[in-house]
Amino acid sequence: MSNEYKKIDERDISYLQSILGKERVIFGKNISEDFSHDELGAVKNMPEVLVEVSKTEEVSKVVKYAYENNIPVVVRGSGTGLVGASVPIYGGIMINLCSMNKILEIDEENLTLTVEPGVLLMEIADFVQEHDLFYPPDPGEKSATIGGNISTNAGGMRAVKYGVTRDYVRGLELVLPTGEIIEVGGKVVKNSSGYSIKDLICGSEGTLGIVTKAILKLLPLPKKSISLLVPFPDLTKAIETVPKIIKSKTIPTSIEFMERDVILAAEEFLGKKFPDSASDAYLLMTFDGNNTEEIEKDYESAANIVLKEGALDIFIADTDERKEAIWSARGAFLEAIKASTTEMDECDVCVPRNKVAEFINYTYELQNKLNIRIKNFGHAGDGNLHVYILRDELKEKEWSEKLPEVFKCMYNKANELKGQVSGEHGIGYAKREYLNKQLGETTLKLMQNIKKAFDPKNILNPGKVCE
Amino acid sequence: MSNEYKKIDERDISYLQSILGKERVIFGKNISEDFSHDELGAVKNMPEVLVEVSKTEEVSKVVKYAYENNIPVVVRGSGTGLVGASVPIYGGIMINLCSMNKILEIDEENLTLTVEPGVLLMEIADFVQEHDLFYPPDPGEKSATIGGNISTNAGGMRAVKYGVTRDYVRGLELVLPTGEIIEVGGKVVKNSSGYSIKDLICGSEGTLGIVTKAILKLLPLPKKSISLLVPFPDLTKAIETVPKIIKSKTIPTSIEFMERDVILAAEEFLGKKFPDSASDAYLLMTFDGNNTEEIEKDYESAANIVLKEGALDIFIADTDERKEAIWSARGAFLEAIKASTTEMDECDVCVPRNKVAEFINYTYELQNKLNIRIKNFGHAGDGNLHVYILRDELKEKEWSEKLPEVFKCMYNKANELKGQVSGEHGIGYAKREYLNKQLGETTLKLMQNIKKAFDPKNILNPGKVCE
Repeated sequence: MSNEYKKIDERDISYLQSILGKERVIFGKNISEDFSHDELGAVKNMPEVLVEVSKTEEVSKVVKYAYENNIPVVVRGSGTGLVGASVPIYGGIMINLCSMNKILEIDEENLTLTVEPGVLLMEIADFVQEHDLFYPPDPGEKSATIGGNISTNAGGMRAVKYGVTRDYVRGLELVLPTGEIIEVGGKVVKNSSGYSIKDLICGSEGTLGIVTKAILKLLPLPKKSISLLVPFPDLTKAIETVPKIIKSKTIPTSIEFMERDVILAAEEFLGKKFPDSASDAYLLMTFDGNNTEEIEKDYESAANIVLKEGALDIFIADTDERKEAIWSARGAFLEAIKASTTEMDECDVCVPRNKVAEFINYTYELQNKLNIRIKNFGHAGDGNLHVYILRDELKEKEWSEKLPEVFKCMYNKANELKGQVSGEHGIGYAKREYLNKQLGETTLKLMQNIKKAFDPKNILNPGKVCE
Repeated sequence: MSNEYKKIDERDISYLQSILGKERVIFGKNISEDFSHDELGAVKNMPEVLVEVSKTEEVSKVVKYAYENNIPVVVRGSGTGLVGASVPIYGGIMINLCSMNKILEIDEENLTLTVEPGVLLMEIADFVQEHDLFYPPDPGEKSATIGGNISTNAGGMRAVKYGVTRDYVRGLELVLPTGEIIEVGGKVVKNSSGYSIKDLICGSEGTLGIVTKAILKLLPLPKKSISLLVPFPDLTKAIETVPKIIKSKTIPTSIEFMERDVILAAEEFLGKKFPDSASDAYLLMTFDGNNTEEIEKDYESAANIVLKEGALDIFIADTDERKEAIWSARGAFLEAIKASTTEMDECDVCVPRNKVAEFINYTYELQNKLNIRIKNFGHAGDGNLHVYILRDELKEKEWSEKLPEVFKCMYNKANELKGQVSGEHGIGYAKREYLNKQLGETTLKLMQNIKKAFDPKNILNPGKVCE
């Protein structure tokens, strides 16, 4: 696809100001450097102009103008991505959707919540809880926008039992790359009316259309939840227990794994003690439901399995304080690891659940073989690992040589285990090469054709995912 | 798109025989008339050649040949569709996938079942139950193939609690219109690795690719289930109770609605008595789970609501015999209605759950206004209605005038209520006009572009869905 774009000039600025007013069109040196990168920051480029929008019609007008004038458009929410998906690598217009942050409707008869894309995940969680309802997807980054979550098909902790973001999107309002506005899906529970554009948009990382409204599926809020923190003598033992729990027909809400030094880093980062950090490795399991007896039966069954498989102890967290102590540490892992090094990059592979131990052991082999620090944590229950490669004191040259080598080895291993390049963070800019390799020529071409079907002029978030 | 195709000649037959052997290539008068239509039979055309395949590589070779020679290809399973999706309206090659009917693997650590497309739904249910596992999608037609279910994104009774077929497809092997073989998804629980081709294929009615293998998600088998049959003085009262149950935060596994004369038709058709047929209308609710106490709490909560809203009684079906008596009647509704008339057609709209009563009342207005018999049953809990328009003694001319008029009115009404043309039966050939109207030009064009992205020569199931 062509990536030759028109540069923003005074006429463009004037047009954007005529739609949005002067104060919502920011350009040149007035754009904060924050908008040039996402959370990980490895990929950077400034937009030529940043526009703040407040409604769908404004998004439509901006995009239509960009389409007609061959200007690239990138959409941005909280900027908490980890693969550069929201970085405007060709400059152009950046649309900031953060001000489209209204919760529009809760419909308790249809169990739906209608929101604008800039609503934060934590706002959704709080709002629906007040209505005794539940939006199950639970990614670690609660300050992400729901638009961002939809664009990466974010998963989070509770995917073991409840699935991922796509499973909770019932309908979308979209601005297409031409500026046209369409609605797909709705409040309906079933839909077999043509190709599911809704499901294709989920996880398309802002390359096919811009989500300007979403209808989310809710569930009744489970009345109780209990977490178990289970220390193990080593990580392999911990993780090899997980498929045995699944096989026993007990499905926890989440099963996370963590190692001692990641816990210590989180303790230092938060200045708060974790309930236990004496053991090398831990599983953290949660069970939820409406009936104490049933939850107890489930966790007793899981407890018997973990003890049989070599767990050293079981700490039950059934009070809000105890749960908070554990889960706040879990929520700080990414930040804590980041704070422990000079620079880092991450690998977000997803492998079948019974291959997690094999993959993690392989990362340790790599750590030793390539002499680079690697830290793991993640979702043992759904096979989605977060592997962090830490630069520490490596010189630029060493880092730039070692990092691609580590990635290459890890993605090859994921491929060998029938895993996927990304479980929930997406491909964006940073992981394209590895996706290309995994997909192979035919599937890659097919994805490129899909992109063309939506965006023949390639103006929406160019240079990402399959390009 | 071009619909000018090469006609099958002796050279084509010879080539197909060279791949498949003579006995698996059936042509001319040797093709049974059954292959010219599906269950409803309103749309008919014979394939020029019917091929029986036994493995993916054979499908690939046949399709590659068709692609190179510009011959249309239609895939067929059990032929239980209701919208003509499997009818070869341009002739050409029909691929019968019924012999690709092996269950390939059950993986209890990853909770997946890998199957060929010709496996029947009832075979899957029985097989996984033996392993104490559960494949939740439960369409009425148990002799449908899983390939057919994937192609329509079939829903069924349990969608209220468990969702639809797409929610249980983890991975697919596909033959593309070019004959190339690809795999999408896998045993992984999360996947954010490029556009979700898997989700797009589900519900694409054999127009984008041919499913030759599927990896399905399983759940642990719920240990108990109880059905409640609830008589009401009239249908409106029955159906208006449903959103109140949902709002109460009790989610049954299924909520079906039925009327007295549909029950009587089923009794006659089966020669078996339904537990009760004294009342005008019924709700049939099921609750499942692992804990008797919790199920009882749920159904007591629902029972209180229905009684408060005017239910006349509650019959509890907690034994296998009683459940069988009720559910076998429910399973026979379509056949029973079909047997009660000379010809019929159906409307499978899905509306928001709190709009079901309004839609059904509208069908009765139409019945009176247009003087044509209309019968309803369906999934009150998920808003998916099956509305049957019966020809009875109408002459050809009257029928061909009234039927489109009824459809037009009903789909307009569905649109007005923010519903969808099809909840689970698909669009196929018969419902294209109504889909086109609902989608509007922009979305229709987008779907046509997606079709072109997969099938630039338009050889795979041409003339269907969005064409």
